[in-house]
Amino acid sequence: MEKLKKYVSVKDEDQFYHQGAVELLVFNFLLILTILTIWLFKNHRFRFLHETGGAMLYGLVMGLIIRYATKASDVDSGTVYECEKLKSGPSTLLINITNQVYEYQYKREISHHNVNGHQGNAMLQKMTFDPSIFFNILLPPIIFHAGYSLKKRHFFRNLGSILTYAFLGTAISCIVIGLIMYGFVKAMLHIGQLKGWEFHFTDCLFFGSLMSATDPVTVLAIFHELHVDTDLYTLLFGESVLNDAVAIVLTYSISIYSPKENPNVFDAAAFFQSVGNFLGIFAGSFAMGSSYAVVTALISFMHLTKFTKLCEFPMLETGLFFLLSWSAFLSAEAAGLTGIVAVLFCGVTQAHYTYNNLSPDSKMRTKQLFEFMNFLAENVIFCYMGLALFTFQNHIFNPLFIFGAFVAVFVARACNIYPLSFLLNLGRKQKIPRNFQHMMMFSGLRGAIAFALAIQDTESQPKQMMFTTALLIVFFTVWVFGGGTTPMLTWLQIRVGIDPDEDLKAESANQTASNLDKNTTKTESAWLFRIWYGFDHKYLKPILTHAGPPLTTTLPEWCTPVARLLTSPSAYGDQLKDDGTDYIINNDELTENYESSAHIPGPAQDRTGFTQATSKEDIHEGDLGLGGYELQLEHTAGQPQMNSLA
Amino acid sequence: MEKLKKYVSVKDEDQFYHQGAVELLVFNFLLILTILTIWLFKNHRFRFLHETGGAMLYGLVMGLIIRYATKASDVDSGTVYECEKLKSGPSTLLINITNQVYEYQYKREISHHNVNGHQGNAMLQKMTFDPSIFFNILLPPIIFHAGYSLKKRHFFRNLGSILTYAFLGTAISCIVIGLIMYGFVKAMLHIGQLKGWEFHFTDCLFFGSLMSATDPVTVLAIFHELHVDTDLYTLLFGESVLNDAVAIVLTYSISIYSPKENPNVFDAAAFFQSVGNFLGIFAGSFAMGSSYAVVTALISFMHLTKFTKLCEFPMLETGLFFLLSWSAFLSAEAAGLTGIVAVLFCGVTQAHYTYNNLSPDSKMRTKQLFEFMNFLAENVIFCYMGLALFTFQNHIFNPLFIFGAFVAVFVARACNIYPLSFLLNLGRKQKIPRNFQHMMMFSGLRGAIAFALAIQDTESQPKQMMFTTALLIVFFTVWVFGGGTTPMLTWLQIRVGIDPDEDLKAESANQTASNLDKNTTKTESAWLFRIWYGFDHKYLKPILTHAGPPLTTTLPEWCTPVARLLTSPSAYGDQLKDDGTDYIINNDELTENYESSAHIPGPAQDRTGFTQATSKEDIHEGDLGLGGYELQLEHTAGQPQMNSLA
Repeated sequence: MEKLKKYVSVKDEDQFYHQGAVELLVFNFLLILTILTIWLFKNHRFRFLHETGGAMLYGLVMGLIIRYATKASDVDSGTVYECEKLKSGPSTLLINITNQVYEYQYKREISHHNVNGHQGNAMLQKMTFDPSIFFNILLPPIIFHAGYSLKKRHFFRNLGSILTYAFLGTAISCIVIGLIMYGFVKAMLHIGQLKGWEFHFTDCLFFGSLMSATDPVTVLAIFHELHVDTDLYTLLFGESVLNDAVAIVLTYSISIYSPKENPNVFDAAAFFQSVGNFLGIFAGSFAMGSSYAVVTALISFMHLTKFTKLCEFPMLETGLFFLLSWSAFLSAEAAGLTGIVAVLFCGVTQAHYTYNNLSPDSKMRTKQLFEFMNFLAENVIFCYMGLALFTFQNHIFNPLFIFGAFVAVFVARACNIYPLSFLLNLGRKQKIPRNFQHMMMFSGLRGAIAFALAIQDTESQPKQMMFTTALLIVFFTVWVFGGGTTPMLTWLQIRVGIDPDEDLKAESANQTASNLDKNTTKTESAWLFRIWYGFDHKYLKPILTHAGPPLTTTLPEWCTPVARLLTSPSAYGDQLKDDGTDYIINNDELTENYESSAHIPGPAQDRTGFTQATSKEDIHEGDLGLGGYELQLEHTAGQPQMNSLA
Repeated sequence: MEKLKKYVSVKDEDQFYHQGAVELLVFNFLLILTILTIWLFKNHRFRFLHETGGAMLYGLVMGLIIRYATKASDVDSGTVYECEKLKSGPSTLLINITNQVYEYQYKREISHHNVNGHQGNAMLQKMTFDPSIFFNILLPPIIFHAGYSLKKRHFFRNLGSILTYAFLGTAISCIVIGLIMYGFVKAMLHIGQLKGWEFHFTDCLFFGSLMSATDPVTVLAIFHELHVDTDLYTLLFGESVLNDAVAIVLTYSISIYSPKENPNVFDAAAFFQSVGNFLGIFAGSFAMGSSYAVVTALISFMHLTKFTKLCEFPMLETGLFFLLSWSAFLSAEAAGLTGIVAVLFCGVTQAHYTYNNLSPDSKMRTKQLFEFMNFLAENVIFCYMGLALFTFQNHIFNPLFIFGAFVAVFVARACNIYPLSFLLNLGRKQKIPRNFQHMMMFSGLRGAIAFALAIQDTESQPKQMMFTTALLIVFFTVWVFGGGTTPMLTWLQIRVGIDPDEDLKAESANQTASNLDKNTTKTESAWLFRIWYGFDHKYLKPILTHAGPPLTTTLPEWCTPVARLLTSPSAYGDQLKDDGTDYIINNDELTENYESSAHIPGPAQDRTGFTQATSKEDIHEGDLGLGGYELQLEHTAGQPQMNSLA
């Protein structure tokens, strides 16, 4: 007896141990294959398949092999046992089987109709990840990296447009997809499909919100490689980054929308509660993410007496940076907010403030670390998508629903891009040309976020059908649209091979020349951002980085004690020498201040602290309402070659 | 009903989701605290507490808080349910509770006497990791990093001594601890403790093998900081790295030692099977690890026609390097070998061959990546050790056993270091001085490996007592010995502030001067390693890196077709111009060859390919039997400032 027990135990343990290893080995093997393929393609300048597309393809082949080459083994697993004594499912279940106690851990609740899917192949089951792995492990580095590598200057210049596409556009897309799908679902019910299913309008909206998360990673990689027009790149990248955040919160808000009575009747109270949820979660996550970044900036900026700065120890600095950014995610999750959104805004804020305080070594370390994590996580997700087509056991392929979804996704993208571009062009000085609009329409790829949102809940039959459909849309858009990017660029005659810095300088010079009419033709977002820029430059940057004027000059006089406390000793030292305080106080309009200070040739050089940040280049940046981010770098770190994060 | 179900499901999911986040947040918080503390200490040049010691201290405090500040909640978890229908434990258990199917995943088998520990506090349970996390996630990066950063030159110079300490020393330590503990256990049984326990001599040996894994990370960090004598550093570092591998395989071999009849009687067959297991697993893991590294070297070295080399794409190169190294671990696990040992030798081989082929960018990326992973993993383990003292629910504190273990550990360390040093000094030209021996004796700290081995199996009561004791020994050695390193160095009058390169050059020059008697006084290991070095230089380096002579010159004539195939086009191109082939064939003794070729001033410069690698410096390296590793770098990458890996 004793012996048998031991044998069973060792056998089980070994089996589990090794299967975990085999499973990971499969992914490693797929990723290695992907890397080698990409290397091959890069050599032949073959741009029709991006690494993510390749990863997906290999995943598909591997899924096919696992599905049809391995046998059903674990017969016990499909049987449902009765347990009368239990009232609810405890987190840990101890079961006495033939006089031996086994410990079981709660995994999830499953519907009766899914029980069959659990019969059989243990390998297939092992290859099916826990969906929370996507949200907790794979997505955060991708999203953080996106936030951390947003190109600041171009991003802020187009911020109005980006916000419009991301918020209004995603809402439009969600509603349009929801309406079209509702029509198709009604039609399907009419012809007798979906018998006995509960499929409400909110489910359609749920599908609409998850399908609204665009992920043009393939397109952006090609844009980056070919140096496509920077404005187009920024519009697309900015939209896709912010749009993810909006789609995630939107999906969550819709999923917890619970009307009190009939789910088919509009319930105003529940609707407004959902809107409130959306705003609350979004704002809360934003606050959580940026506050962690601010803490990081403060720590890395700290310069106490007798203390060498943290940047003397790049390993500690990188570690702290990584841990605090991850904490932003975890805290948001722990507080019931959205970690992904928190980590996105944490990334943006880290890049805006903390990055300036890091040592050159840490700048490179953090950049490379997140780049590497992004690379791995992205390819694992796309590999898994390929695998999921064959290893996921509860697919529901419904041709009509799939057809409807394809139509809905393209119509919704068109309803997002064209009308909004028209509206934006009314306000923009630099119009979004027709071919850019077509390209944006074409770049509405779906990817990691849509998949992760769809796989989160695959219990009910409608959700399973949505998951299958989302997967097919991802396949189609990544391979067809991703592969067609280069021909499309040629066809739409979009210029390539542009140096982003040259581009900006030329435009800046151009705009400075026509300085007089600039203020009137400036778009709304630039106006909004001049206010933000002024606040950021005057108060936030001096508190959080070494750049900008000392606080004692920017805060009102009654705040001086506080200002002295918050200003770093070095900036404070500079301030003592400063005799141009009155000058700054006299000119409260920031743009004016910038221009005039630069037009005075001699004494401007004496105003240390503030004038340091107002070089010739800064004027162009400053009065376009752009972040002074990259120029600050030159002053603080003296490393012009490291200016660009991307 | 439907509603209630939904409510329960959402509640449960939320609870699980958030608890995972809270748990990770606790670790993040502890690590952040540790980093900040270390920063503080580094500023005050306070060397009595290393970061790992700090992490352990914070973990302890946090464990105390969690233990006594949180309440028991999950009452169901402690109850054992009967299930008559089940014959064995399936990997996935479906249970019908109040008409709802729940899925449970098999975790482990537990003994009846441990059931009580499962009652109560869910937070404590959550904080108790699955032990396999240590072996599969946290240890591999630490061990790989150790292998990857072995200082090649000094390591190979002292290889004989290091191997003696690591293999013979660990075996001695294991047996001595086993014997002493067996005496204590007998005494305990005599006075009536351990009633009803099964505690065999093999259990004592098991404890001996797991306590033989030394981990002087604290001491080495201080050595590194103070630039302690390089030979001492290398002896200690080399011993601790290889000794981990030996201890892990030894522990595994002892745990599967199963005598057929009475476990207290010596069973020769089972014993030899265990020895066979040890050798087989060790050799298999070694082969697995190094073959993955060789594959990596070959891929990174590949130079096909029309192909840009992989090193043009640092991200792909780093990714491939990382994935192949990880695959070495996973493959070894999947094959039933020891992943940790495989990953160690993979690291050593990667550093020896692949590192030379990497682009400068990838060299830095891989180094920093593994350094970072090592830093995080190490601190997480030490944090967890602190936590485990209070959160682990089945501690068995037995004062006599603990006292015995302390005595055994110190006696065993003495029996390892002093006799072996005496024997080694008989053969070594450069003796290991008395104070070095004392320092090595003092540096017998226990750490991550001992802990990970102890926590792997905590089911039976003897294993629980061993775990508790191991934990206390880790605490004591890390804090007391780790903290006492600096005073000990002063007390033993060990010189600090030595530049390792200067040190080696001086000695090399010294030894070249006394060139005549060198060959006779050379130690065994140097003799052994000249053979290895010759083979490595003639055959392996040319196949796997850009260094060394083309294979066509080193292989016998009948191998020429094969040699041509294996030699890289560039080396092959050099070979065509080579007219000194006869010269090389005439001198088959490598050392001779080196010396004479360098003594001919003029024509030596014409022999490209081979002579390129025989510069003035190489002579000293070459005929000392050292790896040509660091000098090769200068020839291939032309980056002298990146010579040193450590």
